[in-house]
Amino acid sequence: MTATIHKLDPRGEPSLDPVMGLVAHDLNLVNAVILDRMQSDIPLIPELAGHLIAGGGKRLRPMLTLASAKLLDYAGTRHHRLAAAVEFIHTATLLHDDVVDGSDLRRGKRTANLIWGNPASVLVGDFLFSRSFELMVEDGSLKVLKILSGASAVIAEGEVNQLTAVRRIETSEERYLDIIGAKTAALFAAACRIAAVVAERGEEEEAALDAYGRNLGIAFQLVDDAIDYVSDAGTMGKDAGDDFREGKMTLPVILAYARGDAEQKAFWKDAVSGKRSSDEDLAHAIGLMQETRAVDDTLARARHYGQRAVDALGGFSGGAAKNAMIEAVEFAVARAF
Amino acid sequence: MTATIHKLDPRGEPSLDPVMGLVAHDLNLVNAVILDRMQSDIPLIPELAGHLIAGGGKRLRPMLTLASAKLLDYAGTRHHRLAAAVEFIHTATLLHDDVVDGSDLRRGKRTANLIWGNPASVLVGDFLFSRSFELMVEDGSLKVLKILSGASAVIAEGEVNQLTAVRRIETSEERYLDIIGAKTAALFAAACRIAAVVAERGEEEEAALDAYGRNLGIAFQLVDDAIDYVSDAGTMGKDAGDDFREGKMTLPVILAYARGDAEQKAFWKDAVSGKRSSDEDLAHAIGLMQETRAVDDTLARARHYGQRAVDALGGFSGGAAKNAMIEAVEFAVARAF
Repeated sequence: MTATIHKLDPRGEPSLDPVMGLVAHDLNLVNAVILDRMQSDIPLIPELAGHLIAGGGKRLRPMLTLASAKLLDYAGTRHHRLAAAVEFIHTATLLHDDVVDGSDLRRGKRTANLIWGNPASVLVGDFLFSRSFELMVEDGSLKVLKILSGASAVIAEGEVNQLTAVRRIETSEERYLDIIGAKTAALFAAACRIAAVVAERGEEEEAALDAYGRNLGIAFQLVDDAIDYVSDAGTMGKDAGDDFREGKMTLPVILAYARGDAEQKAFWKDAVSGKRSSDEDLAHAIGLMQETRAVDDTLARARHYGQRAVDALGGFSGGAAKNAMIEAVEFAVARAF
Repeated sequence: MTATIHKLDPRGEPSLDPVMGLVAHDLNLVNAVILDRMQSDIPLIPELAGHLIAGGGKRLRPMLTLASAKLLDYAGTRHHRLAAAVEFIHTATLLHDDVVDGSDLRRGKRTANLIWGNPASVLVGDFLFSRSFELMVEDGSLKVLKILSGASAVIAEGEVNQLTAVRRIETSEERYLDIIGAKTAALFAAACRIAAVVAERGEEEEAALDAYGRNLGIAFQLVDDAIDYVSDAGTMGKDAGDDFREGKMTLPVILAYARGDAEQKAFWKDAVSGKRSSDEDLAHAIGLMQETRAVDDTLARARHYGQRAVDALGGFSGGAAKNAMIEAVEFAVARAF
């Protein structure tokens, strides 16, 4: 027997199309649940929620639930409601994130907090979060509820951890990985894991899908944090340099600071503390990152976690679902090239 | 057989002592759960949460769960964890409320958002909210999860409804009742109802306890809203006149506006829109409320709902628990005298 070795190949042109095609029908049904359950007698709720939910999100997390269910040949419909619950948790987090960061651009559109104010964003986030639990309760699996309530608590912890690391130049790569593991990867992992629960598979397959999602989530966030230093608002739908101006300790900064000489270290201290935040300072920062290969190596780290995500699928037999999930990883790590 | 008719008597000096005595032992166990489960590896979380949780709250909602369980002679321990979950939902709501309102005083102490900033308050609120669901999942009752996730969604809807009524002079008493029914009474009702679930009673007793909690919650909020026009920060632990300055359409304002002459109506329009918000304006507003009996009749409305709360207990046989729960209602409606 010959082993099938899936190696990430950044020279290809990977796409999300296979995974989107795989789950397109299911995703329509998920979208119907989402639209139905974001309704309320209070008009501001669907108005504000709809701005973000209808506003160009890729539905990446629900797609992971759906693709994982395909991988397991799950033939039921429970995952539609649960995928909607996952998206509601994510949307609630985005609404609160934008308040926390004071962001004004998300997915290329003005943020909800900019249009309706911080109070409305906080409260509609709370509503969507509650609604996500109502969806889970309707499904009725205590195991799913445990996975997703646990992930929600971990996400909040990760967000607080990130908040307290802001403008702290001493933040380590280990702490950064803790933060993104919690704020991003926990929900990716849970989104995949719950598919194994509804498909009534054992702990081994649950753990494998959890590992796929978790490593993909880390890779995804690493690339996202790298992109903040290579792109502009037009291509990414968020303001380039946001992380820089907010003094966020992402891996590109951690690496550039660790590798910099005394003069560069002084610049980074000033930049992270908020004393250097002009467009010229950002351009200088990007130059230093090229010099120290900080962005390149952030992307190399992303490929490492991407490879781990792919390998986590090793126990599943091949087919369209597996291939699409592998290509989704390749797409995630290739985005910045 | 002679009927026992419990009439609210505002001339007495009702106290929370009987209900506090009734549940003191249980409440210690609930507090232990609360302290244990607000912990996190991220130090800011217990620090911020502890400021509010340890900071003089009366634990009114968990007390309702515990007292209701006593009323039903429930001998188990499940309600301790669930009462802690109720308090976490409430605490999360308070943290977010203070961000929404921009409050700087709560229970006589500086608010968390003032000390640690809005971002931390939003995120720690999210953490406590997630943690409350983890506690419910550990308990394992889907029925309790349904009641409390439903209440949480209703609370968020009520908060958004209140937000969109701010500075709107045309807000009706009906809309006001919708708002406080959702933002306050829903959790009071749920806190009582879940005791009947853990005690494995039928729908009738669930509904009776729900009605007790709901009417008590409405009475409680009516009195709270009246107090904002009769007290000062020293006695109430929040800034008197906060509602006035924020242009909140509470019942005292709705009644004073409805009953005012043309000149008074003009004043209220200006005040609610934010054009009249000085201390002198507040004093004038309080004078108008005395003239129109707006505060007195807000308190009369509170007594009406208090009486309904007491009557909802009519089906339960008397005893220390029932008497304490009745006196708690009397205390709630007598606070402002």
